[in-house]
Amino acid sequence: MSTFKKNANSAAAAVSLSRRNLLVGSTGAIASVGLMGLAPLSIAAEEPKSALPDYASWKDENAVIVHSANTLETRRDAIGSGVVTPSNHLYVRNNLPAPGNEIVADPDAWELRIEGVNTPATLTLAELKKIGIESVTAVLQCSGNGRQFFTHGPGGTQWGVGAAGCVVWTGVPLRDVVAKLGGVKDGMEYITGTGGETLPAGLDPKTIMVERSIPTRALDQAILAWELNDEALPLTHGGPLRLVIPGYYGVNNVKYVKQVAFTESQTDAKIQASGYRIRDVGVKGAPDQPSMWEMPVKSWVTTPLEKAGSGRNMIHGVAFGGNNPLDKVEVSIDGGSNWLEARLLGPDMGRFAWRPFVLAIDLAPGEYRIVSRASDSEGNAQPQERTENERGYGNASWSDHGLSLTVS
Amino acid sequence: MSTFKKNANSAAAAVSLSRRNLLVGSTGAIASVGLMGLAPLSIAAEEPKSALPDYASWKDENAVIVHSANTLETRRDAIGSGVVTPSNHLYVRNNLPAPGNEIVADPDAWELRIEGVNTPATLTLAELKKIGIESVTAVLQCSGNGRQFFTHGPGGTQWGVGAAGCVVWTGVPLRDVVAKLGGVKDGMEYITGTGGETLPAGLDPKTIMVERSIPTRALDQAILAWELNDEALPLTHGGPLRLVIPGYYGVNNVKYVKQVAFTESQTDAKIQASGYRIRDVGVKGAPDQPSMWEMPVKSWVTTPLEKAGSGRNMIHGVAFGGNNPLDKVEVSIDGGSNWLEARLLGPDMGRFAWRPFVLAIDLAPGEYRIVSRASDSEGNAQPQERTENERGYGNASWSDHGLSLTVS
Repeated sequence: MSTFKKNANSAAAAVSLSRRNLLVGSTGAIASVGLMGLAPLSIAAEEPKSALPDYASWKDENAVIVHSANTLETRRDAIGSGVVTPSNHLYVRNNLPAPGNEIVADPDAWELRIEGVNTPATLTLAELKKIGIESVTAVLQCSGNGRQFFTHGPGGTQWGVGAAGCVVWTGVPLRDVVAKLGGVKDGMEYITGTGGETLPAGLDPKTIMVERSIPTRALDQAILAWELNDEALPLTHGGPLRLVIPGYYGVNNVKYVKQVAFTESQTDAKIQASGYRIRDVGVKGAPDQPSMWEMPVKSWVTTPLEKAGSGRNMIHGVAFGGNNPLDKVEVSIDGGSNWLEARLLGPDMGRFAWRPFVLAIDLAPGEYRIVSRASDSEGNAQPQERTENERGYGNASWSDHGLSLTVS
Repeated sequence: MSTFKKNANSAAAAVSLSRRNLLVGSTGAIASVGLMGLAPLSIAAEEPKSALPDYASWKDENAVIVHSANTLETRRDAIGSGVVTPSNHLYVRNNLPAPGNEIVADPDAWELRIEGVNTPATLTLAELKKIGIESVTAVLQCSGNGRQFFTHGPGGTQWGVGAAGCVVWTGVPLRDVVAKLGGVKDGMEYITGTGGETLPAGLDPKTIMVERSIPTRALDQAILAWELNDEALPLTHGGPLRLVIPGYYGVNNVKYVKQVAFTESQTDAKIQASGYRIRDVGVKGAPDQPSMWEMPVKSWVTTPLEKAGSGRNMIHGVAFGGNNPLDKVEVSIDGGSNWLEARLLGPDMGRFAWRPFVLAIDLAPGEYRIVSRASDSEGNAQPQERTENERGYGNASWSDHGLSLTVS
């Protein structure tokens, strides 16, 4: 099955460009015309490195890889050694083109509808700001981060390691808003957030709209955020208001959020019903498959890349526990035969944040395979191998995320 | 004395412009020609708000007040509610004009001389990076932050509350470098850092050079930093390498540091010998006066500014313990007669970091004086009144740092 799909993908890549231009960024739409497995080569030809899209023109072009107008990746060597990813380095993944800048011109006027509570209401951002405030540092990571390591050719952006960052979100805890509105209605099992994108005409809205449902257990940590890294949340990252679920994959963090509804069932929008589902290669998405909700423990080495001098070297990387505090990170220079514990840097910013790590080691000339393996406070360890799946989601393999290094 | 100086200052302001342009940023030089107490009005006329200097052109012009080419202040309402000040909001205070950009073109080639250790050496930044690494979040604050509240008219930049920020520094602990060089030589009581500025010709170098001595007890926390907020340290903030002393006033954090010497005595450079000394109004600076080293506990309210609507309001601010962990922050809406404890936001980034705080409170129409008062883990409380001193240093008065608010 895997071999068949790879061949099919290679053939599809050559004819995919015009359709991608029409439908760029719409996961549902791309899937519907069968463009699985674009080869990295065709993407590179289509999208030159430096072409930052207008809505993200403030990004550091030396720190990001532009996969498409809707997908910017942080370069592995731009991840740095501090605990917070600078906003201008942070990856972007939009499922639809970003709305116009006018929606951030007067942030306080933005309106959010809250449904599925005992007193449904429409609140402006100015009103939300008076209900409460919290600041949380959390990893934001795309479900497809690490997709390029899958060998069966899953479609979508060929993310390496950099569809992830660790940032500070500031906003009101969703639970505080809910408490003010009389609490969640009985029987509601999901938090369903709806994005404020303008939907392209001529397509069934359900196939393209960004509407995601997550279990109500996430109410403990969900916030409605209006600041990113201590600045007003930019349009590029979902401003003026984003539903942020620390510990959950990026897609659940609904941008320009216009409605949060507590619902009995998950939304039937395609991005939820069949999109972002873990299933075997070749199988279509369906609601009974696991959804991309909580992130597991993960780490990867960031530098040195490819070449280094002999003698003392500092091996850097980042690690996080997903929903649990990080316990430790081990590093191997021989592809996983022997392990040394790395040192975690800087302050611990809480269970949703990542920790930079470092291992100081003397290296003689030669070839090395540098890998890192994290484990969390519950004893969950990062697996050696990825879980193969149709769409290339949730790659936490320590083997895939390593670096080959030539020391001379 | 106070009245006399104010009058003298007003007269001096009118003739100060050409001299200031020649000697901008050189504290020693400005003092030597007697230009104490430039009135804020003359500064505003001289330096239009939006004129960001070239070496800091990447700053957010809506977030900073440009006092001069060498002094940029963060606006009170741009401080935000997160724990880390974005680099493009961070204040700048240079004692000399910044060197050219060429010094950050190849950061790893930057050389640092280490003296006063058992094996003195010159190390490149590339070599320093292999010795060790740590990441620390710390308040950076100018000694003169809050100077504008002094009424005797101290000279220098008329800083309000925004010559301060909280940022993440990444670099090698100085103690690790020292250990590698055989340890500090016996009898050395100070760490003396020398900046890499190009000194203007025709002036006695000792009167203008940036060379600061701090007690060796600071070796516990000193780092040689090459990253600010997870990006390569920009020239604007002392890149490629800065001596950072968490918990100490900004002037001790020597930019473009070219030498760190462990010394028996403090340097006789003017910036140390007579500059940055706490003394009575009218008294000249001298080495036996307290130097601007460790910062004390401090807080201030950031928003709302001036006007607010009645009903629920969120009073925001920042607070830090200086060298001790922060214990608590109290807020008063009646100028200090009654106090309520504020809530600290976000993760605790360690004893050198600040914490954003918030108090949610219902306000009826009327006039309010909003003040905040912090205390640290050792029981030190922020004082009501400033300590009057010639240069307007070290203002931690909670009374001065409050805000008057009209609620309608």
